Amino acid sequence: MRRKNLTLGIFGFGCVGQGLYEVLSRTNGLKVSIKKICIKDANKERSLAPLFFTTNKNDILYDPDIDVVVELINDDTAAFDIVKTAMQNGKAVVSASKKMIAGHLYELYELQQQYKVPFLYEGACCASIPIIRNLEEYYDNDLLHSIEGIVNGSTNYILTKIFDENKNFSAALSEAQELGFAETDPAMDIEGHDPKFKLCILLLHAFGIFVKPEHIFNFGIERLNDFDINYAREKHATIKLIATCRKIGDEVYAYVFPQLVNGDSQLTGIHNEYNGVIVESAFSDKQFFVGKGAGSTPTGSAVLSDISALSYGYRYEYRKIGQSILSREENHPLRLTQHVALKVYARYGNETEIDLGDFDEVHEKYESGETRFVVGTIPLEKLKASAWVNGKNINLIGVS
Amino acid sequence: MRRKNLTLGIFGFGCVGQGLYEVLSRTNGLKVSIKKICIKDANKERSLAPLFFTTNKNDILYDPDIDVVVELINDDTAAFDIVKTAMQNGKAVVSASKKMIAGHLYELYELQQQYKVPFLYEGACCASIPIIRNLEEYYDNDLLHSIEGIVNGSTNYILTKIFDENKNFSAALSEAQELGFAETDPAMDIEGHDPKFKLCILLLHAFGIFVKPEHIFNFGIERLNDFDINYAREKHATIKLIATCRKIGDEVYAYVFPQLVNGDSQLTGIHNEYNGVIVESAFSDKQFFVGKGAGSTPTGSAVLSDISALSYGYRYEYRKIGQSILSREENHPLRLTQHVALKVYARYGNETEIDLGDFDEVHEKYESGETRFVVGTIPLEKLKASAWVNGKNINLIGVS
Repeated sequence: MRRKNLTLGIFGFGCVGQGLYEVLSRTNGLKVSIKKICIKDANKERSLAPLFFTTNKNDILYDPDIDVVVELINDDTAAFDIVKTAMQNGKAVVSASKKMIAGHLYELYELQQQYKVPFLYEGACCASIPIIRNLEEYYDNDLLHSIEGIVNGSTNYILTKIFDENKNFSAALSEAQELGFAETDPAMDIEGHDPKFKLCILLLHAFGIFVKPEHIFNFGIERLNDFDINYAREKHATIKLIATCRKIGDEVYAYVFPQLVNGDSQLTGIHNEYNGVIVESAFSDKQFFVGKGAGSTPTGSAVLSDISALSYGYRYEYRKIGQSILSREENHPLRLTQHVALKVYARYGNETEIDLGDFDEVHEKYESGETRFVVGTIPLEKLKASAWVNGKNINLIGVS
Repeated sequence: MRRKNLTLGIFGFGCVGQGLYEVLSRTNGLKVSIKKICIKDANKERSLAPLFFTTNKNDILYDPDIDVVVELINDDTAAFDIVKTAMQNGKAVVSASKKMIAGHLYELYELQQQYKVPFLYEGACCASIPIIRNLEEYYDNDLLHSIEGIVNGSTNYILTKIFDENKNFSAALSEAQELGFAETDPAMDIEGHDPKFKLCILLLHAFGIFVKPEHIFNFGIERLNDFDINYAREKHATIKLIATCRKIGDEVYAYVFPQLVNGDSQLTGIHNEYNGVIVESAFSDKQFFVGKGAGSTPTGSAVLSDISALSYGYRYEYRKIGQSILSREENHPLRLTQHVALKVYARYGNETEIDLGDFDEVHEKYESGETRFVVGTIPLEKLKASAWVNGKNINLIGVS
């Protein structure tokens, strides 16, 4: 199979864009040339000749020479517009914008079918780990049971600094920001939204279901205090922010949640900006994928692999979408459920801040001065519907 | 994309074959039926009705209803014959016989081209880890630098028991045999042949080169004694049997070797029968794949994934074979080299048992009673050509 020559138009020339340019110019197997790079600020000094750049998106989107649009910008609304127009104009697209992709999964799927163009986004999920490709190509729907993993590099970096180096939350966060692992506005990461976006993408490629981000419960690490940290330490455990989805019969449950993990879990060994994903499949066998999950280079390597795949005509087949209907006995598709009981540590200030009636069972109750916590079992649906989980004195950690 | 219905003929009904049967009968997405199972011993009691079984291989090989032959037997000569005849008769084939595959890589490649049938063998390399598929589909030749890993579950099990539980070699080996991780004749594993066979398969899918097993230097763990083990312990390290291949310019070097590893290496954390493979690619990013590497179930899960892939018409494209020529500047293909210097610990009894003249440099020399060792740098070509490495008092461990 011969590879196609590709002509690229790139949106954005930050770290990923620049790294991509360098690697492409060093590589002679990959027949790829960059024709134009669309940037926002024409006056910024650039490492390339001005003729490479434009500030007019249409110079790329409507250039018939350009086969592939690589979208690497920060603005999600603009990104979706670029991706959509590029596909409507028959161009293949590579993107790593997880929020944008998770928020428009169904439209993006339809655009691919309608305009018969590939849209690849390995860089949007666990950066360098080829998890989408493995779910898409290797793990059959019926053979796949669950995915569980650390899918956000910046929060894992923060948690590592807290637990391994005794740093406090804000010092760890600043350090992550300095190293470029966390955004200037870290809310998407530390509140657990970013892992939720990735979970939406994983759910589509793992189980063939379209799930809106707002239908998934997420809880972040921003309310983690010294009391919680000591609690974990006393249990000889550490805390990891974990995204989980699991199929049971015709239903799939999914959530993002900080969890106590100890030496028994492979995720304990995932430090700093690394991501780790455990895929459990038939014969109850677990595969573990590890790689860097934040930073421009790991994302760049995934974008590059997508470009390389396009040169062979690769596209996601989304086979699971059909399978999720065909393989069910009653012929109805898999669906998301919130009907699962979670065992959690819930810390609160006083009884008015929590509704213990939401719990199926309270196993432990602790009180000391201003701090109280329970360890109990609560249905995910109640957790998701409750208002009290948003209280500033509430923190939740999954325990098992 | 709709999946094809497949009719299977299976050779061998041991653990993998039986597990496969069970999973296939539980799965309704995969439209696969087993028509016939060829066994050696007709008198053994079986869990299925006799009509499923035959002792005549031609009942499968010449049955026009059978699309896919699954070869799961222990006899390599018979296995090659079965695989070859099946492909000549237009049947797709799945196999996990690493020695047979590594020994016939080029013929098996040619058979696929000539008869236009797919031949898949994910189970032959690191059992449950989808490493062949990832190399084949995800890692472009030009972007791939090296592969390094623990690819043999039984020796890793033995080394874990020695280092973590202070067992001696023979106790650890017996335990591995009892658990079914090591063969009754463990020579292939403990002498490092099995990882070499896997390395041959990896070299083809990673770099597009055909390498005969006899061209790769392998050293096993069978001569590991207490002195060596203490040496590793004093260095706060453990010993792992590691297969390595790395591309430098137009050349690739490859070898199998026990190596000292410490906490800095991700391979330190791979215990018992697990395998771990580190793939280093463009942007110097490392991906780490972990999964069970021995036992019938992990192999069965890989065989099952191959069968599932066949239902979608998947086949290995062997793209790297072309690339290894096309992408080189001087237009010649990548080639295997032995021209690389290795830093090793070499333990011996007396000076006549080793030729220290083979070393480029000796950094350390130690002598105490009957035991001597050097730490030095030696070219792989000299190691491979030397007779002294086969001496019973010689042990080698890579150090870095």
